[in-house]
Amino acid sequence: MQFADRLQNVETSAIRELFKLLGTPGIVSFAGGFPDSAMFDVEGIREASRRALDEEAGGALQYGATEGYEPLRSQLSAFMATKGVDVPPQGLIVTTGSQQALDLIGKTLISPGDKVIVEGPTFLATIQCFRLYGAQLISAPVDAGGVRTDALEKLIAEHKPKFVYLIPTFGNPSGALLDLERRKQVLEMAVRHQTVIVEDDPYGDLYFTDTPPPPSLLALTPEVPGSRALLVHCGSLSKVLSPGLRVGWMVAPPALLANAVMCKQFSDAHTSTFAQATAAQYLKSGRMPATLANVRKVYAERCDAMADSLRRELGDAITFTQPQGGLFFWARLTGAHGGPTDAAAFARKAIQELVAFVPGAPFFAADPDHATLRLSFATADVAKIREGVARLAKAL
Amino acid sequence: MQFADRLQNVETSAIRELFKLLGTPGIVSFAGGFPDSAMFDVEGIREASRRALDEEAGGALQYGATEGYEPLRSQLSAFMATKGVDVPPQGLIVTTGSQQALDLIGKTLISPGDKVIVEGPTFLATIQCFRLYGAQLISAPVDAGGVRTDALEKLIAEHKPKFVYLIPTFGNPSGALLDLERRKQVLEMAVRHQTVIVEDDPYGDLYFTDTPPPPSLLALTPEVPGSRALLVHCGSLSKVLSPGLRVGWMVAPPALLANAVMCKQFSDAHTSTFAQATAAQYLKSGRMPATLANVRKVYAERCDAMADSLRRELGDAITFTQPQGGLFFWARLTGAHGGPTDAAAFARKAIQELVAFVPGAPFFAADPDHATLRLSFATADVAKIREGVARLAKAL
Repeated sequence: MQFADRLQNVETSAIRELFKLLGTPGIVSFAGGFPDSAMFDVEGIREASRRALDEEAGGALQYGATEGYEPLRSQLSAFMATKGVDVPPQGLIVTTGSQQALDLIGKTLISPGDKVIVEGPTFLATIQCFRLYGAQLISAPVDAGGVRTDALEKLIAEHKPKFVYLIPTFGNPSGALLDLERRKQVLEMAVRHQTVIVEDDPYGDLYFTDTPPPPSLLALTPEVPGSRALLVHCGSLSKVLSPGLRVGWMVAPPALLANAVMCKQFSDAHTSTFAQATAAQYLKSGRMPATLANVRKVYAERCDAMADSLRRELGDAITFTQPQGGLFFWARLTGAHGGPTDAAAFARKAIQELVAFVPGAPFFAADPDHATLRLSFATADVAKIREGVARLAKAL
Repeated sequence: MQFADRLQNVETSAIRELFKLLGTPGIVSFAGGFPDSAMFDVEGIREASRRALDEEAGGALQYGATEGYEPLRSQLSAFMATKGVDVPPQGLIVTTGSQQALDLIGKTLISPGDKVIVEGPTFLATIQCFRLYGAQLISAPVDAGGVRTDALEKLIAEHKPKFVYLIPTFGNPSGALLDLERRKQVLEMAVRHQTVIVEDDPYGDLYFTDTPPPPSLLALTPEVPGSRALLVHCGSLSKVLSPGLRVGWMVAPPALLANAVMCKQFSDAHTSTFAQATAAQYLKSGRMPATLANVRKVYAERCDAMADSLRRELGDAITFTQPQGGLFFWARLTGAHGGPTDAAAFARKAIQELVAFVPGAPFFAADPDHATLRLSFATADVAKIREGVARLAKAL
């Protein structure tokens, strides 16, 4: 069987090999990219799905509009409003997780050979998704304050990309938070160069400080005239409510939204109306603020525990900036005192000590930094985090 | 904003314009392609979703394997076994409706310019889906016995297509049933020409006769050595249980299945585990046979009513073969007694009489027959069907 040429653009073995080892009994895993299922509001979701079937079985079980189930679009519009975003229900479409938003962006915008700028490092599945559509990825450097806007603007001017893809808030894997000044700079350079910006924002609600992070790029567009017409925003309920519902959404300028809907029609017709109706009922129930507060509190404790343990156990063998939200630590091996500098080799030794993480190199679309690694603190409790980090120290 | 070149391959306006008119109050619609929501087993699905959350909330709400939720793969394997198909759980993957199976087939197999043979007429969303991946579609003629295998083999020999896409059982829109002899011929020519065959089978369970239709191509592969390695089969719960769950599946040779999983990872990560766990519990509950029996009975009555009404009210103005299953009549305007011969013009007149159907031309990838039309009998009850067909007669 001869497969499509586009499959040659993709390489997925790097992480798959590692994940095969995660089934080892007794392992403490910092490798996952998912929320802790122990924190799902099962009772609230059960009640929401019951209401969906009691009140709107026809709609919840029938084919639905490709754009999304109207009651959910309204609820998502209201949810966005609580975060300073003014978007009407028809200004967003529902996607099958925000992964599908990325796929629709690729399908709608990328012709083979088109250049796309991403952060280095960035979300692994974004790299592969865009490459399947033939994108040539350019990597923009990131520091603890998010993407370096000086470097980004130079890359935009040089490469004239089809679009720029950013995870400005607690990015996967960087954990970095783009500060307010840089956010405005990004919007200004979008207008200056007439470049589309894709803001992926699955982690924005997971902040650990008393005050929320700076507003999303989308929320800031009113401050930068002309930027709204160049901004695409992807949201998701996966990290805050449940990934299993597969409910994400995309806000975009009308012409892009219309083409994305057309592509979605032939991708999966529509997102599960059963899941959409359940999500709509959940948002309507008013339980989300309490759920978010609980999730933030638990993840904040785990994040603190991981930071303390890493400092105490690994000392100057690694450097990192403690994240203010999200699910991830992004760290770098220093090689101090003859310690490791290659995260892939370190990961193999760590597995032998029954602790797992993800080496950072695959998260770079170009010029991988082999000393980097990603540690998730989301799914292990505080005791497990301490134990896991102690094992990491043994593997040094 | 400059969109991807692939969007230029697609034209979706033909039917969209018509569907805008369907909101007209009082209209009787034969235009839809969906099952009747009044026949959904809401109680059974409610119970299944309750069990999914009671017994396996972690799995039902968390990220899941891209290949599909294991309990559902097992249930689907067992469901296929009742239809004479021997496929282990790992021999199929779950897709977000069978529409996604089509998308993954396109993504995995079609390079721009590749030829694909489809039936003329065929499922509209298949035409657009494959064209988005750059396929050049070749149309094979269909009669009341399904695709004409003599013509199909000539086209395969001439065009050496990447694959052939067929809906052998109660096809959309043809309603045709490929007979057993032709089924074997298709498998034999697949082996002879080493051509992949994609069998789309969402309607196979909706038969109205006392005995089931001939076995699926997949079920027949043991009789034609070498054919299993060339066969892809798409199944769906949409027409028999609920489209809103968006649960379909795909059986394919291992290498294709592996590449489809890789592509799916970047399309939507996985199908809603909540919907999958609900579907698995439903299949496990044992309610499916009774649900199918009920659906068959109701649709058979509606199908009979439509056939009788069409014969009585429209006489020799149209020709059709009464379908033995599925959701659709495929008819052709004869122009007898100065009646209409253009189905699009007839559709506009019909709308004025408050009855809707879909003109057949868009269902052809090439050489459209403008006298054809599709009528669904699924969503109107017998009285509405009679009234709707009477209105059609007025529009003649």
